[in-house]
Amino acid sequence: MKILVTGGAGFIGSHLIDALCAKGHHVVCVDDLSLGRIEHIAHHLKSTTFEFIQLNILDESRFDALFSEHRFDCVFHMAANSDIQEGATQLRVDLEKTFMTTFITLNCMQRHGVQHIAFASSSAVYGERSTPLREDSGPLQPISFYGAAKLAAEAYISAFCENFDMRAWIFRFPNVVGERATHGVIFDFIQRLRENPHELLILGDGSQEKPYLYVKDLVSAMLFVWERTSEKINCYNIGVSTTTRVSKIADIVVEEMGLQNVQYRYTGGDRGWKGDVPWFLYDLHKITELGWTAQMTSDDAVRHAVRALLGTYRE
Amino acid sequence: MKILVTGGAGFIGSHLIDALCAKGHHVVCVDDLSLGRIEHIAHHLKSTTFEFIQLNILDESRFDALFSEHRFDCVFHMAANSDIQEGATQLRVDLEKTFMTTFITLNCMQRHGVQHIAFASSSAVYGERSTPLREDSGPLQPISFYGAAKLAAEAYISAFCENFDMRAWIFRFPNVVGERATHGVIFDFIQRLRENPHELLILGDGSQEKPYLYVKDLVSAMLFVWERTSEKINCYNIGVSTTTRVSKIADIVVEEMGLQNVQYRYTGGDRGWKGDVPWFLYDLHKITELGWTAQMTSDDAVRHAVRALLGTYRE
Repeated sequence: MKILVTGGAGFIGSHLIDALCAKGHHVVCVDDLSLGRIEHIAHHLKSTTFEFIQLNILDESRFDALFSEHRFDCVFHMAANSDIQEGATQLRVDLEKTFMTTFITLNCMQRHGVQHIAFASSSAVYGERSTPLREDSGPLQPISFYGAAKLAAEAYISAFCENFDMRAWIFRFPNVVGERATHGVIFDFIQRLRENPHELLILGDGSQEKPYLYVKDLVSAMLFVWERTSEKINCYNIGVSTTTRVSKIADIVVEEMGLQNVQYRYTGGDRGWKGDVPWFLYDLHKITELGWTAQMTSDDAVRHAVRALLGTYRE
Repeated sequence: MKILVTGGAGFIGSHLIDALCAKGHHVVCVDDLSLGRIEHIAHHLKSTTFEFIQLNILDESRFDALFSEHRFDCVFHMAANSDIQEGATQLRVDLEKTFMTTFITLNCMQRHGVQHIAFASSSAVYGERSTPLREDSGPLQPISFYGAAKLAAEAYISAFCENFDMRAWIFRFPNVVGERATHGVIFDFIQRLRENPHELLILGDGSQEKPYLYVKDLVSAMLFVWERTSEKINCYNIGVSTTTRVSKIADIVVEEMGLQNVQYRYTGGDRGWKGDVPWFLYDLHKITELGWTAQMTSDDAVRHAVRALLGTYRE
């Protein structure tokens, strides 16, 4: 198949491209390189079944022209603002990079008869709840602008599917970790400890506890579901049944960096920042019943990601 | 209180203003008069506690200036594209008039410290379901672009409430009928029968069946809930427990117009147009338990609306 991957030079997008290329698909990657990095896809650049185009989706006429040049069978829309904290202060960032890119992608698909979209959604669409998150449960009250933009995007995907006979795969991601991560708590801890190996600033009180999924598990789940489901809208939580506390992440980072006597300093409060959901668990029945489970536990995923980042970004 | 009503010259907005003024509030009405009509609010124009400003919310700097001039206690955001069928073909109409007006309103409120918003949402956020719609139930998969824009707006309202300590009242409206309606099935039937009193075109097969709420019942419910609830997000279905079939609406219109031997011609199919939900019922436990119920049944509301429109718009 000929597949367009938006945000394909990003952390998750580039792993997805690795998997799609390994399966023999022809991949066109679009990325504006504002958050993505060309190194993440460099190993594909000489392939005859891979093409990279540096392009901002908000430049709709240029993006639309791409749909005239190629006949895509499916779009994996991964482009988004992945910097959730930036989104909390720059409200138009998530609106444009996360929501409007989706709206424009859907419009281009409709104009050019592309009927399948796989979308990188998020646990953030659920907001803050005290029970495990089920795909079909409400209310959906996101507490971050990131989550709001993802839910707004889901809403439009739903309407496009009905009105233009499209089919969608909506994947609600948890925290994802692994090689090539360019942000997130592990990345931040490593950066801070490199700057000062005696003290580590931890946002919140360290008790935040969430499932961390290894990026290759995530990608395997996406393709597993995509290949096996064919409802009009196929919405799946992708996750792991275990969780890791933020203070445990700090311990693992400190241990893997071989540091000792690091003082933890907490900003306090039950969460890292406004809009941060301090705890959640997925109800994973839907994807489990389809036959997929994560290979790596949350703790293992964190440790693996720490080692990978220490290797990749060692100065 | 000093209250801003956006879309205040529209069908529902103008009835809301009547009720707010009757309760002694100071009302500032904003409307671009693209769908609203100055006649709907003409009876308030000489009041010293009422002000009308013709303005398009998308002109953000002018709208923002209004928040500098006034210190609003609450915004009733009613402005939206109410022409659902137009929204199905002109995808940017709902995006701009329904979603972006909400995003801009929230931004202006945040910049000027206005913390309360009441929002005109819709049953359309639920999509198509076979069971009564509950406020806290999912999934939310709108099938119209109107519903998508309303859900996107709800998502951003939720994130604003969390991040800027705002409070919201989200009212999910059913089909609303009554004096001053400028669109909708009753309005359409009257127009068609005036053009040709021998034949009536009915979209779908006429079996579509939904709750029709009298506009004054709707407004009374909004104010009832708004005055009695104070959660961060107060989300309520507003409706009536009875329903009316579209073919019954046709019968009522024909009867009230004093016509005989009208041939009904159906476009066929189970719905009026793509994105039209052919059947729904609200679960009204939440608002009933608060102490509110509609005065008029769905059939009575339709008949009353027909009479009102025949009176108001008689040529």
